[in-house]
Amino acid sequence: MTDESEDEGEHGHDHEGEGEGESEGYHEPDRETFSHDPVGHTEVRAGMTVGDLVEQYGRAGLGAADVHEAADVTAKMFDDDVTVFFGLAGAMAPTGMRRIVSDLIRDGYIDVLVTTGANLTHDSIEAIGGKHHHGEVHAEGKTEREHDETLRDEEVDRIYNVYLPQEHFADFEGHLREEVFPEIEETVSIERLTRELGRANAEVNDRKGIEEDAGIAAAAYENDVPVYCPAIQDSVLGLQAWMYSQTTDFSLDALADMTPLTDRAFEAEEAGAFVVGGGVPKNFTLQTMLVTPGAYDYAVQLTMDPPQTGGLSGATLDEARSWGKLEKDAENVSVYADASVTLPLIVAAARERLEST
Amino acid sequence: MTDESEDEGEHGHDHEGEGEGESEGYHEPDRETFSHDPVGHTEVRAGMTVGDLVEQYGRAGLGAADVHEAADVTAKMFDDDVTVFFGLAGAMAPTGMRRIVSDLIRDGYIDVLVTTGANLTHDSIEAIGGKHHHGEVHAEGKTEREHDETLRDEEVDRIYNVYLPQEHFADFEGHLREEVFPEIEETVSIERLTRELGRANAEVNDRKGIEEDAGIAAAAYENDVPVYCPAIQDSVLGLQAWMYSQTTDFSLDALADMTPLTDRAFEAEEAGAFVVGGGVPKNFTLQTMLVTPGAYDYAVQLTMDPPQTGGLSGATLDEARSWGKLEKDAENVSVYADASVTLPLIVAAARERLEST
Amino acid sequence: MTDESEDEGEHGHDHEGEGEGESEGYHEPDRETFSHDPVGHTEVRAGMTVGDLVEQYGRAGLGAADVHEAADVTAKMFDDDVTVFFGLAGAMAPTGMRRIVSDLIRDGYIDVLVTTGANLTHDSIEAIGGKHHHGEVHAEGKTEREHDETLRDEEVDRIYNVYLPQEHFADFEGHLREEVFPEIEETVSIERLTRELGRANAEVNDRKGIEEDAGIAAAAYENDVPVYCPAIQDSVLGLQAWMYSQTTDFSLDALADMTPLTDRAFEAEEAGAFVVGGGVPKNFTLQTMLVTPGAYDYAVQLTMDPPQTGGLSGATLDEARSWGKLEKDAENVSVYADASVTLPLIVAAARERLEST
Amino acid sequence: MTDESEDEGEHGHDHEGEGEGESEGYHEPDRETFSHDPVGHTEVRAGMTVGDLVEQYGRAGLGAADVHEAADVTAKMFDDDVTVFFGLAGAMAPTGMRRIVSDLIRDGYIDVLVTTGANLTHDSIEAIGGKHHHGEVHAEGKTEREHDETLRDEEVDRIYNVYLPQEHFADFEGHLREEVFPEIEETVSIERLTRELGRANAEVNDRKGIEEDAGIAAAAYENDVPVYCPAIQDSVLGLQAWMYSQTTDFSLDALADMTPLTDRAFEAEEAGAFVVGGGVPKNFTLQTMLVTPGAYDYAVQLTMDPPQTGGLSGATLDEARSWGKLEKDAENVSVYADASVTLPLIVAAARERLEST
Repeated sequence: MTDESEDEGEHGHDHEGEGEGESEGYHEPDRETFSHDPVGHTEVRAGMTVGDLVEQYGRAGLGAADVHEAADVTAKMFDDDVTVFFGLAGAMAPTGMRRIVSDLIRDGYIDVLVTTGANLTHDSIEAIGGKHHHGEVHAEGKTEREHDETLRDEEVDRIYNVYLPQEHFADFEGHLREEVFPEIEETVSIERLTRELGRANAEVNDRKGIEEDAGIAAAAYENDVPVYCPAIQDSVLGLQAWMYSQTTDFSLDALADMTPLTDRAFEAEEAGAFVVGGGVPKNFTLQTMLVTPGAYDYAVQLTMDPPQTGGLSGATLDEARSWGKLEKDAENVSVYADASVTLPLIVAAARERLEST
Repeated sequence: MTDESEDEGEHGHDHEGEGEGESEGYHEPDRETFSHDPVGHTEVRAGMTVGDLVEQYGRAGLGAADVHEAADVTAKMFDDDVTVFFGLAGAMAPTGMRRIVSDLIRDGYIDVLVTTGANLTHDSIEAIGGKHHHGEVHAEGKTEREHDETLRDEEVDRIYNVYLPQEHFADFEGHLREEVFPEIEETVSIERLTRELGRANAEVNDRKGIEEDAGIAAAAYENDVPVYCPAIQDSVLGLQAWMYSQTTDFSLDALADMTPLTDRAFEAEEAGAFVVGGGVPKNFTLQTMLVTPGAYDYAVQLTMDPPQTGGLSGATLDEARSWGKLEKDAENVSVYADASVTLPLIVAAARERLEST
Repeated sequence: MTDESEDEGEHGHDHEGEGEGESEGYHEPDRETFSHDPVGHTEVRAGMTVGDLVEQYGRAGLGAADVHEAADVTAKMFDDDVTVFFGLAGAMAPTGMRRIVSDLIRDGYIDVLVTTGANLTHDSIEAIGGKHHHGEVHAEGKTEREHDETLRDEEVDRIYNVYLPQEHFADFEGHLREEVFPEIEETVSIERLTRELGRANAEVNDRKGIEEDAGIAAAAYENDVPVYCPAIQDSVLGLQAWMYSQTTDFSLDALADMTPLTDRAFEAEEAGAFVVGGGVPKNFTLQTMLVTPGAYDYAVQLTMDPPQTGGLSGATLDEARSWGKLEKDAENVSVYADASVTLPLIVAAARERLEST
Repeated sequence: MTDESEDEGEHGHDHEGEGEGESEGYHEPDRETFSHDPVGHTEVRAGMTVGDLVEQYGRAGLGAADVHEAADVTAKMFDDDVTVFFGLAGAMAPTGMRRIVSDLIRDGYIDVLVTTGANLTHDSIEAIGGKHHHGEVHAEGKTEREHDETLRDEEVDRIYNVYLPQEHFADFEGHLREEVFPEIEETVSIERLTRELGRANAEVNDRKGIEEDAGIAAAAYENDVPVYCPAIQDSVLGLQAWMYSQTTDFSLDALADMTPLTDRAFEAEEAGAFVVGGGVPKNFTLQTMLVTPGAYDYAVQLTMDPPQTGGLSGATLDEARSWGKLEKDAENVSVYADASVTLPLIVAAARERLEST
């Protein structure tokens, strides 16, 4: 603090210089909160890299500064001997963020994945050759309501501006019944099911020569990254698992994953949480630290929900600190903006820093 | 449409009357989209009832009109032979909305409850004599971060502007181990656990003469309302269940609840969804209709998340229609505002309409 | 602080009693941040008044607590010898909040009004017999874009879910040219124009026997409440003023209002700011205190914009304190929710408290 | 439409091929709304350019797709013979977006600027050697409220996470009184004042050899870009103008700018609106087209406010179409995310496309 005060003094002096005596006779008040740290102005130019852009964000304030800091914390989290727990909420896989996550797994940046049954369902549909499609929130010739009524008649499901023809669910059901469920004729952990799903997705993707990559579950299977999915019932994958359980000995133990997950958190020398969106993936990723002596050393969340309503999805990471989910000296950043924009931005910038040398 | 056009013509005439010839020579264009439906202006007065206020909202546009419509749909949903599925997301029980829900259950307005482990945890803590407390997002003398570091030292957990001293979790653990778990020494459905929890909460609340009411789980138990909690692992209740399962034969079957839940949806003559917040409670409530031939006839959601980011929590109910979760002719309203404000407002107005006669 | 600590000690004791020894051997940590202040649970019943409901909000946390506190500060602001500056942003008058504001002016609760040219335009249209109409964001048979294309063909302007047939602008133009502008054939202050507008609105409303009340500008005129409108050019009223100025000696002095406004702030013994929405009305209301030695003693803002993006409209009132716009010990509350819902709620509750005795 | 149906048929065939008979016996429903347009998945890699990233966004859905489309429309707007009206709301200049705008003006991409007095104030402060500083929303050792109380004592103003020491306002006042006001001793248009300000900023910046660039007003002056500022009173610049007017013949005509602005809109062969934030700059930019026969052919808005509250700042550009502010066939995109992130992203991508050849 003393150093900063001196520093401040010097800058104060500089400032007078800059002001060229216009404030003559002006006595600057004692300033302890304020310290000299000028805002620069973001400059952009044709052909700059994403890493350059994110550096430029660091000169500015507002959310731009948060994106810069998030890239910084992400690079630290990805670079060191940090065990990275990655939380991925619902609509990210079907809407175009699938490859970013599967590439991060393949390149060893993610150690544990917590996600939703919906993401695994849509990830698998693409692994076996199905496709999501660009669509419209408001279609020509219809209100949103009429639009959705028509889509229902056309047997097309809508996820904001993305469509999924429903026959892909039938294909997915066939995949589960032929390639996944036969391997598990007993009560197993949810992680065992997601592992078999990843294996089957990888096999079918390869066997059929599907153009799209095998995806998140497959990458996790091939890289020994466990995939946890606490609310699996809350998805088409869960509905299919339930229907299969009706006629076989198969079922899922809701509690069995917590021992290996907790062990992983326990063993981590340093731990990082990278959380995209809210809901169960966010809370479950953070909660893991409740039953271990440690807590997260790094945390980045990309959230689309506001903090001021008090909901968990938009809650700050500082709030998580009161529960002991983050270390008191953890480096943590929340970015309040559309995650489909900020996730690629931050991952590209972190990769540029880590891989460019 | 013809009727409306005629209607329009008349109103057009009225309008010319109002304008007193100022627009003389003016030829009104053909108007099919527009029809005469004047906005009134909301009037308020000292001592008006909540029902009066909500009627006044109906005169205005913007979100006020949505609140009015939501009260209307809620009254229909609560009044008729409608099976009501109520989804209750995370922070509502600890922050003051517990009694509204338990009263709705007691008065027979809710038939099926879908909620989170967090709500059941905090509901139970109050049932057995613990209390949440008003707190601060920003405490005197500290940043949010320092504030939360201090709370950690003081062993107090923060939920936005609400505090919970951590010893209540120890009390809750004792309650589970003494009153709840001993009754279930095998693998059971999650609903079976929430039912035993409700029973135990009711018993202890009564035995100890706790001032606060026995709460949501207890009211559900006493009124045969099943409580579904798909992501139970994602809560302190789930953590305790896991720890208990380590040393006993107790465990939870993740899929076992889906048969009775689906049967209930199947049997409903008319079905309504009242969804507070997003996440798993919202999706699971809506998903239930995916495996039945029917769909919701009424739906109200009070959400705090914006629709334009594409996340499920803020998604419109029309989007749910494309999936077949709502009937094509369902009456549905989304209210985009803080649910801690709109839930009491809408329930009070609906009750005034239903119970005042 | 000592008192509170003692208080805390007692409550701690109470708490042990509540816990009935379940935490035996438990040593509560030193707690300075936390103090005993139990959250109650909001109860609602058929026929309760709005004041009752707002009292019940005060038992809860989250935004409900903010609404309760806002009603409290509003009652203080309205009750005492406080000069109330009321900022009213754009879409409020046409969408149904016109009467609440005109009634507040008539009943003496507002001393200075800062608003937009848009609000004055739409307020005047209704004063002279025009009407806004309930409309649709998404019309039957069209996307939002097609809907708006059709409305353009039909010569109907849309304000979210409210329509305005364009011929009302012609009526408004006639009103200005016949009743307002002839009175001012020189360069005047903007407030002089809004005053003449209020006079004319009141006269025509009365003369024609218009059913709707004469509105905000008229009430302000009749109660000697000045109406400031810094960005008047940015409205249909401003466009009309400009067109009139082309052929006459009429014009508007952009700076002339600042002396009487500043004088009013200067003379206020106590000052309160009630701000609905953001933009110029918010900033100008707050800025007024920059050039006086005093600052606001009370402030309530009902904002629909999030604070985390750094925009002024969603900025906290604490931020305004750093600029000296609020007294350091001012009572201030920000309510983050749809103002068309919260304005009637808070005004009704404040009136109930002030007028029920 | 026929073409698309055929196209769909083919894709349907492809799809069956992909599905390898798993849906055998499945009859695809008639699909007119849905058409084959697969979502790709955004890929990122170290060292990619911003243009590459924005191309990748185009493969995804959600907000990423909007950023891609916005870059596309921006490139068209900047490239062709389009007159570009640029609206710049409040906090952008002091928080780090000043250079992006001044560079766009220098490179000829902007023809007319509409902004706030606040932006011009903060832009000028930096032109003459003052600086804004990185700061904290929550400072160490304080609540937000205490933090802002302390900043007040320290004479530092806060704009979200940016600080401005108040002596810079004194320097700015000196600048106005010495370099700007003496040139205008009569009633002038607001644009005349902003032009003199730009001239003075450029001169002083050059004379003193200030490291930071001369900024937005200076660039506009040097490139004959008019700067309109309807609510100039609502800023420190306006307060200073008012104080100067008290003792001189200087004043500002609120209506005088509307003729040249409207002429410019009238003469534009094609017109584009690029709007950053809401408020008066957004509305005034759009309103300009109300009094001309034409309307905008291109429009991009980067807004931080939600549309569902009905406020103008978050209103869709389609709504503006109902008023005739946009051509019916205009290309328009709204990006709902933090503008300090999206403005640099979109400008860099548009420049890469336009300048890389």
